[in-house]
Amino acid sequence: MANDFEDHCWKDVVSPGALDIYAHYVRNILVGPSPALLAIDLYELAYQGGAKPVSELHKTFPSSCGEYAHAAIEPTKRLFNAARAASLPIFYTTQDMQPDGAPTRVTATKRRDVPRDPSLYAIRADFKPQPGDVIVPKQRASGFYGTPLLAHLIQLGIQTVIVCGESTSGCVRASSVDAYSHGFHVVIVEECCFDRSLLSHKVNLFDLHHKYADVMHVDNVIAHLDSQAVKKAS
Amino acid sequence: MANDFEDHCWKDVVSPGALDIYAHYVRNILVGPSPALLAIDLYELAYQGGAKPVSELHKTFPSSCGEYAHAAIEPTKRLFNAARAASLPIFYTTQDMQPDGAPTRVTATKRRDVPRDPSLYAIRADFKPQPGDVIVPKQRASGFYGTPLLAHLIQLGIQTVIVCGESTSGCVRASSVDAYSHGFHVVIVEECCFDRSLLSHKVNLFDLHHKYADVMHVDNVIAHLDSQAVKKAS
Amino acid sequence: MANDFEDHCWKDVVSPGALDIYAHYVRNILVGPSPALLAIDLYELAYQGGAKPVSELHKTFPSSCGEYAHAAIEPTKRLFNAARAASLPIFYTTQDMQPDGAPTRVTATKRRDVPRDPSLYAIRADFKPQPGDVIVPKQRASGFYGTPLLAHLIQLGIQTVIVCGESTSGCVRASSVDAYSHGFHVVIVEECCFDRSLLSHKVNLFDLHHKYADVMHVDNVIAHLDSQAVKKAS
Amino acid sequence: MANDFEDHCWKDVVSPGALDIYAHYVRNILVGPSPALLAIDLYELAYQGGAKPVSELHKTFPSSCGEYAHAAIEPTKRLFNAARAASLPIFYTTQDMQPDGAPTRVTATKRRDVPRDPSLYAIRADFKPQPGDVIVPKQRASGFYGTPLLAHLIQLGIQTVIVCGESTSGCVRASSVDAYSHGFHVVIVEECCFDRSLLSHKVNLFDLHHKYADVMHVDNVIAHLDSQAVKKAS
Repeated sequence: MANDFEDHCWKDVVSPGALDIYAHYVRNILVGPSPALLAIDLYELAYQGGAKPVSELHKTFPSSCGEYAHAAIEPTKRLFNAARAASLPIFYTTQDMQPDGAPTRVTATKRRDVPRDPSLYAIRADFKPQPGDVIVPKQRASGFYGTPLLAHLIQLGIQTVIVCGESTSGCVRASSVDAYSHGFHVVIVEECCFDRSLLSHKVNLFDLHHKYADVMHVDNVIAHLDSQAVKKAS
Repeated sequence: MANDFEDHCWKDVVSPGALDIYAHYVRNILVGPSPALLAIDLYELAYQGGAKPVSELHKTFPSSCGEYAHAAIEPTKRLFNAARAASLPIFYTTQDMQPDGAPTRVTATKRRDVPRDPSLYAIRADFKPQPGDVIVPKQRASGFYGTPLLAHLIQLGIQTVIVCGESTSGCVRASSVDAYSHGFHVVIVEECCFDRSLLSHKVNLFDLHHKYADVMHVDNVIAHLDSQAVKKAS
Repeated sequence: MANDFEDHCWKDVVSPGALDIYAHYVRNILVGPSPALLAIDLYELAYQGGAKPVSELHKTFPSSCGEYAHAAIEPTKRLFNAARAASLPIFYTTQDMQPDGAPTRVTATKRRDVPRDPSLYAIRADFKPQPGDVIVPKQRASGFYGTPLLAHLIQLGIQTVIVCGESTSGCVRASSVDAYSHGFHVVIVEECCFDRSLLSHKVNLFDLHHKYADVMHVDNVIAHLDSQAVKKAS
Repeated sequence: MANDFEDHCWKDVVSPGALDIYAHYVRNILVGPSPALLAIDLYELAYQGGAKPVSELHKTFPSSCGEYAHAAIEPTKRLFNAARAASLPIFYTTQDMQPDGAPTRVTATKRRDVPRDPSLYAIRADFKPQPGDVIVPKQRASGFYGTPLLAHLIQLGIQTVIVCGESTSGCVRASSVDAYSHGFHVVIVEECCFDRSLLSHKVNLFDLHHKYADVMHVDNVIAHLDSQAVKKAS
């Protein structure tokens, strides 16, 4: 498996020389025990304007990930199906829209003009939360910051966090680093993460894979979850 | 001022011998710089059934602090008025009632049958939040746990947290210990805190005063805030 | 078992009327799954001057718990033996004595003149750490504040924290509340906790038992651990 | 000043099209009030083997940042001098080397074979800590995770954190994101940060500048600190 360690989307931006100096991070990757699914910011805002290049959308829909968001819909639906079949607890993060929840100056990132229409922060219907799923409103990038997510994971005995969603360079990265720091095994599903910038997407997955997380292809994650679902059923 | 250090409600339950072994905690007490007001759980649930002894209420209203809650209304209104006149940022905590905000097993304390009617967790009209005030929903005892309260205080440059509310032995204590651990100067306003059990109220204030906070009488806190309000006005 | 719910050391200070208004907290108590032992501040400082009343020691040894500390030695040794036989991970907290570890104004509590001799913060030989045990230096009351303890517990898959040590009203309480908030099941071993003030000891155990933790007698905890050790061996 | 917003080292790797879609992050940048200096992991390990390309060093010194580390020495010395002249509190992070401080499986990143010689984690003599400076040992990437750093900053009334050190894509990024989440204004000094990979260095500074921090040139930061030092002196 170690041979496939660098077989990921960053191959065309990280030079062979750079991969060489990271050789001492190579290891076997795996899903890990007692997993939960953590879906970061799969809200409507990220899909606005449809499956078009971000460069055509950003003036009208400055938060849309456009074609990258839409390309991730099918693999993410498959991931959710496998997670539900394997009875994984499912947590979604979204933007905290409570009107009196913060002094006016507190924001998740340094972005100006964050949209304030609550319906834009509803989870997209493709991944609609089911009874028993948990929604975690947050004010910062990480799903762990200023939220009770950690306590829920501990109380359920979770040891592995499987991460998908957006943006790779923002909330996905911040949540994954925090999950790793807290002692969880972290899996990031490559095809189910996306960003407005392809370079940031790739370099952040590269950083995360080497330092904090096992970046895995969606087919491999689903195959593992399916095998667990079969075990439970038998 | 050190002479008054033990002139508080615990005098009739903590023996002179016990006070003697705490003598090395005696110090001058004060409000401290850059204060904010933190009002813990001043929601309707605590006042249910009116100003009666808790022993007469607990079967019908198991969360009510009865006569202790009602006795604190007038001093707490005076404290809010002084805090507003001195332009203090004001934060309220309350129970997080988001329906899908937690797996079913997560609760603030080990209490059974926590009431689930959201209107019971509205802030009492006597202390009605004003525009610009912040409401902090929480799932645990401390107002800092699983909430962005800390980030708000830091962003506003707060260095002192003035605490009032209930219960003294539960959320007030947990919030005060966390505020102290985080590096804030903590003031607890004696007449504006209350509990269902008078013994727990007194012993917890005793513990907090010696270890983590300056327990002060409401008149002294208001006098300080008034002097600050005058300074700002002139 | 619910009949024994209030059969603890606080019986002589909490009135029957007060117990009655706490009746809705009564529940079965238990050790819980995947336990670790958390030994709070079992350092030499707490035992200075020998098994004498605190009132006779406090002028010379202001941090000693005297007779209460020494009475807890034997039960705590038994608890450690049972925990080791059952292969529980063991964590000790102690005072962080790193000379350049804090600005001069940061302290664990508001106590003046905290002793600065590192040898006083060595774990007492009766409970000597063994290879593989973890020592957690802390600057605040809670063993979780400003330490990586939480990450270690998560990484080991711990779900229950068994707490012993001192002081009941200080670091034991703060650590136990944090453990509960983080989602762990918390067990406090009554005979293995102690304080300088008997009243604070009893009222804090009362508060903790009703709100956050299962206060259990050492014999019951050891019986449970012994049964687990037998299971593992067979 | 907004015209210079993108005048940074990432200009040659982030395309004009990508910069265009980030236009709504453009804003004035500044040092901010009440600053402290946070120097991340300026320990000897990062400088091993001298000012050579990382590709020539990594087999012998797998943690060395080589020429990048050495290029940052002079600007970082200038930054320290300016910070000391302006009386900023100074915090250094380093690797926690306490021998019994963690279960064997806990590490800062997923790197194998982390060197265990404590002398490699001593702060480089060029930036030697002075009396009153604070050293923060950490077990994870962020200087805030599992450390009391946050409480120290709050207790000192700090509102701005000026970050330098290494690695940009690891501990600098993790610490900066946490500082921002906690509510601090964050300044990252471009010439005083370094990484083993130039691409990761540039893309991470790009991400940080747009989302969480003001990436500034060392000359601008020093000019600001010098002006503050003059104000204090007069």
